[in-house]
Amino acid sequence: MTTHPVRPPVPPYYTVVFTSVRTEGDNGYGETADRMDELVREIPGFLGLDSARTPGGLGISVGYFRDKDAIEQWRTNMEHQAAQQRGKAEWYESYSVHIAKVERSHGFERG
Amino acid sequence: MTTHPVRPPVPPYYTVVFTSVRTEGDNGYGETADRMDELVREIPGFLGLDSARTPGGLGISVGYFRDKDAIEQWRTNMEHQAAQQRGKAEWYESYSVHIAKVERSHGFERG
Repeated sequence: MTTHPVRPPVPPYYTVVFTSVRTEGDNGYGETADRMDELVREIPGFLGLDSARTPGGLGISVGYFRDKDAIEQWRTNMEHQAAQQRGKAEWYESYSVHIAKVERSHGFERG
Repeated sequence: MTTHPVRPPVPPYYTVVFTSVRTEGDNGYGETADRMDELVREIPGFLGLDSARTPGGLGISVGYFRDKDAIEQWRTNMEHQAAQQRGKAEWYESYSVHIAKVERSHGFERG
């Protein structure tokens, strides 16, 4: 499997940047993370997801969405809301969320 | 050292999301990356930087800036431009850049 970043959609679109530091141990996180990864792809207007985590350090997930309505659907999805609650209770030491409108983007792939 | 995400500034502000996959080997990347990390902090209007890289996989850097002028200063900085050229020539298999205006943000830190 070749990993590569999501090809930038045509602007304007929206992005949700989620940066986090985990607590110790898995505590069911992995299973839920896989499920959320699956679930977000079912949201109409979902355009892609890039994720990275430095071992023992920061994790960053960047979701791309067609518009604010798509983000609102994802934010208020009941399974996602339950996961957000467990995130605060158990999985995250700290996190930040940034919701932003993408004005410009470009990509590069080695020829 | 405790790692934690940058505390979200008060919106509106701008974010530059840079996602990338590296080529094999270091080829001087590490040194330049450290220098860029130092240099971006000197840009007036720079607000913070979150970075993560999955070993052997995707890297994501998210920079936060007060406004578009600050991003333009960073984009056109001569040392940064030289690094961007080497990036395309040597360091990156693929990358994407998204420039976006942050409309909402929030953070969480365990009590």
